[in-house]
Amino acid sequence: MFVKNCWYVAGWAHELIDGALLGRTILNERILFYKGENDSVVAMEDRCCHRGAALSLGRLEGNNVRCMYHGLLFNSAGTCIEVPGRDAIPPSFKVPTYPVEVQDKLIWIWMGDPALADKTTIPGFHYLSQPEWVGEPGYLHYQANYQLMVDNLADFNHVAYVHPTTFGGSPNYVAEHTESPLERLDNGFKVTKWHMNCDLAPFVKKFVKGMGKVDRWNTVRMQMPGYFYLESGFSPAGNGIEKGNMEGAISFRNLQAMTPETEDSTHLFWVYLHNQTENQDLITRSLSASILEGLYEDMPIIELQQKILAKDPGFTLKSMPSDVGLNHMRWLVAQQLKKEQAQAPQRDKDQARKDMVRSEAMAGA
Amino acid sequence: MFVKNCWYVAGWAHELIDGALLGRTILNERILFYKGENDSVVAMEDRCCHRGAALSLGRLEGNNVRCMYHGLLFNSAGTCIEVPGRDAIPPSFKVPTYPVEVQDKLIWIWMGDPALADKTTIPGFHYLSQPEWVGEPGYLHYQANYQLMVDNLADFNHVAYVHPTTFGGSPNYVAEHTESPLERLDNGFKVTKWHMNCDLAPFVKKFVKGMGKVDRWNTVRMQMPGYFYLESGFSPAGNGIEKGNMEGAISFRNLQAMTPETEDSTHLFWVYLHNQTENQDLITRSLSASILEGLYEDMPIIELQQKILAKDPGFTLKSMPSDVGLNHMRWLVAQQLKKEQAQAPQRDKDQARKDMVRSEAMAGA
Amino acid sequence: MFVKNCWYVAGWAHELIDGALLGRTILNERILFYKGENDSVVAMEDRCCHRGAALSLGRLEGNNVRCMYHGLLFNSAGTCIEVPGRDAIPPSFKVPTYPVEVQDKLIWIWMGDPALADKTTIPGFHYLSQPEWVGEPGYLHYQANYQLMVDNLADFNHVAYVHPTTFGGSPNYVAEHTESPLERLDNGFKVTKWHMNCDLAPFVKKFVKGMGKVDRWNTVRMQMPGYFYLESGFSPAGNGIEKGNMEGAISFRNLQAMTPETEDSTHLFWVYLHNQTENQDLITRSLSASILEGLYEDMPIIELQQKILAKDPGFTLKSMPSDVGLNHMRWLVAQQLKKEQAQAPQRDKDQARKDMVRSEAMAGA
Ligand code: FES
Ligand code: FES
Ligand code: FES
Repeated sequence: MFVKNCWYVAGWAHELIDGALLGRTILNERILFYKGENDSVVAMEDRCCHRGAALSLGRLEGNNVRCMYHGLLFNSAGTCIEVPGRDAIPPSFKVPTYPVEVQDKLIWIWMGDPALADKTTIPGFHYLSQPEWVGEPGYLHYQANYQLMVDNLADFNHVAYVHPTTFGGSPNYVAEHTESPLERLDNGFKVTKWHMNCDLAPFVKKFVKGMGKVDRWNTVRMQMPGYFYLESGFSPAGNGIEKGNMEGAISFRNLQAMTPETEDSTHLFWVYLHNQTENQDLITRSLSASILEGLYEDMPIIELQQKILAKDPGFTLKSMPSDVGLNHMRWLVAQQLKKEQAQAPQRDKDQARKDMVRSEAMAGA
Repeated sequence: MFVKNCWYVAGWAHELIDGALLGRTILNERILFYKGENDSVVAMEDRCCHRGAALSLGRLEGNNVRCMYHGLLFNSAGTCIEVPGRDAIPPSFKVPTYPVEVQDKLIWIWMGDPALADKTTIPGFHYLSQPEWVGEPGYLHYQANYQLMVDNLADFNHVAYVHPTTFGGSPNYVAEHTESPLERLDNGFKVTKWHMNCDLAPFVKKFVKGMGKVDRWNTVRMQMPGYFYLESGFSPAGNGIEKGNMEGAISFRNLQAMTPETEDSTHLFWVYLHNQTENQDLITRSLSASILEGLYEDMPIIELQQKILAKDPGFTLKSMPSDVGLNHMRWLVAQQLKKEQAQAPQRDKDQARKDMVRSEAMAGA
Repeated sequence: MFVKNCWYVAGWAHELIDGALLGRTILNERILFYKGENDSVVAMEDRCCHRGAALSLGRLEGNNVRCMYHGLLFNSAGTCIEVPGRDAIPPSFKVPTYPVEVQDKLIWIWMGDPALADKTTIPGFHYLSQPEWVGEPGYLHYQANYQLMVDNLADFNHVAYVHPTTFGGSPNYVAEHTESPLERLDNGFKVTKWHMNCDLAPFVKKFVKGMGKVDRWNTVRMQMPGYFYLESGFSPAGNGIEKGNMEGAISFRNLQAMTPETEDSTHLFWVYLHNQTENQDLITRSLSASILEGLYEDMPIIELQQKILAKDPGFTLKSMPSDVGLNHMRWLVAQQLKKEQAQAPQRDKDQARKDMVRSEAMAGA
């Protein structure tokens, strides 16, 4: 069960170049994405209304997509506008579409009630639109429920044990760093962590030479259901970064957007941005490789955890104080799920949408 | 659920040469096929009555098959005729057999009530027995229900979109060709399509040089549950082929026999015959490769369609006029299924057969 | 469903060298095995009580294991003894452990009620502790229920058909050999087979030259749920081995321990020992290779049998006199299962254990 009335990242905008028909499963629904010749992006059910063939195996024609099984042509609203060899088109020949937007180089989709889709609530990541911040767009596929990935990011203590040689954890991480009280938000939380007079993280050492001890900060904001935002950096130790002195500091911006594919698999769209101007490409590539290395440290733990937990749904997890962030995230999701289920018609919008299409079919058949 | 009281193609006769024990799943039942030294073909359950070992891992001995786990020997009627080291053989030691015939180089099996198995109703494909028609026997395994494959063949309009560069479809195919009214048969349908003054199909162009515009005909007959017969050809345009003038024409005969393996997988036995005498082997091989190329154009569409439809059994398909053939085929199958279910003893012959064996076992044990 | 109140082989002792954390599924439960610095072996649930991460992905620290997700440290009793950055440890922070012993170079685990675990009842295989008996420890993974493997070993007649060129079966095996009446034991059976004046078995011929006709004996003892013990040998024919004359005889000792992994997969721990002193290593390796060859003759039969039987649970097997051993083994297992289910609290010890941990959690949370 997934939260539906919210925006999810469905892909990177560049995945739709050159007339690509992108078929991707989001929240257990197969969806076709494409960009028409008017540059607008379309998301529709990846299933022809005729015999159920995948439209992603079809052909882009201007702003329309043709099913390449028997040739039905659908416009960007999902309406059939051509039946080969026929003049009349039954009004029931329709494929459901989804609200979809491109913002900050990402494709955003709304899987819930279309009437509630409000562009202004797209989480976004404005650094991706700012030329001074650069980084390689990343993607990983996890064989795990997205909430295990949210759990992972919501508890930084795992850095001490999982990432000592990449992100620079150490067994003393918990004792050595200080942090602001976790700020509970309506849709997530925010927390800042300080690590004063410590070593430069391994992934930064690769391209920053001659920096001694540093003061490190991480400002995390998480937004439900699956967004992780990080603003972080390193300043020469004692330079007064905590009072805002950015001189000699090096900064990063990181997004990790977790979009459920199925109940036990997840799309991770991620990027790690820097604003260095010298050796820019080199640093971009180095960062990308380092972060990927770190993600690959998490992945086997999370994927095995998924198997272990799936096998025994009755298993009771034990809570620790450091779970405060993830518990808040899970509570928010649970609240939202309850709210969506309570919404009047007592059935999800999918059913409603299907019922609508079905009754049209009967009328039109 | 499958139609049972009918003949299915179980394999090519040549698959049983040299004492091969062929284990193949047909309609969800594992079956052993072999040819005894008297050249008669046997089909029996591929499961020893002792501890259930696969008889297809056994050994052919004359007309009998020995289970190579503990050595029981079964004759071609499935009766145990030897228990190693014992004189007495319990009468319950039996393995069910199935009516089976070789005809037109194909193995035909009857999965339903043996009392109803009538050799004279074997669909056959007599061109395979006629020396002037030549072609390579083909086989493909589809990860899809057989009815999606029947649907595919019953609606030729897909040729326009799926096979433009192989079988010679074109977006104008629907408009350009004419066809006879579809003739509904008790067990299928028949239709002839004419495409006058068109180009030679790509798969023919490869070996026929110097033929200009042609008149093309396709006479399709489909028989339920899963047979497709095609008689087709190309004649110099305007030569009067529609009045029967075969001068200068080139003809083909095609069989596609679809036999369910499981609910979501299918055996396709196919052959494409020609009657050219010059360059015969070359043409045979060229045809075989071209048709395979065409089948591989259908396969990914059908296999993905299978996944899409299996995921959402409530999805309502929309009908088009061109579905008349496939709808008739599906209706015939549904009628036959209803009929078979209504048959007196209210249980299928498998159950009856098993019950019989089981009660013998009790008596004999 | 498995017998739980008994010892199972969980691995070879040498699998735990050098601080290895061995994660292995036994009776459907994921278990972590390790050897602490005090050389004692530990078996605990391979699931951290915090968020369910696999402890086998953790780190051995002395006699303790640390979960390398967020750093909880557990001692060999499964009690959490360190929470990073915290002083107080909730008493509910525990991971269940299992009675485990090393004996005869094997790791033995008790999956049932710990109160009933009695070391003196470990089946063992004392030849493994005797320096004059040598052989390579073996392991195979079967995709089949363990009972099909027990069936296989409990009926030696299969040697005639499955192993003619390895273990020296022959179609006349049943007629040619004699055997003691099968001795039913409380926990298994015992039987001795004699094969007088026969050929040396192929696997022995490889390294014993110049021995003519032999008298062969096999003394089998099976113990439920899944132990097979064999004492066997070959003596020059007519030398009087049946009266105890061991002069010129060559002897072997074989263990096959079958431990369920899941309902349809099994761990096989096996070893074939000899006591030859000349060419010892050569003979060891030759034996190992030959026996493996024989096991690979059984494996495809058993794994396909598993599929066939799993597909049709209603299938009734037919009994033969040679099934007396396997029927006794299955009856013993069925009796023991009934007994375990009838035990007072009407729920298995797993549930009890989990409930205990769960209620502690509530108290401690
Ligand atoms: S399935 Fe799309 S046109 Fe037929
Ligand atoms: S299973 Fe066939 S003889 Fe035993
Ligand atoms: S899951 Fe083991 S310490 Fe968190």
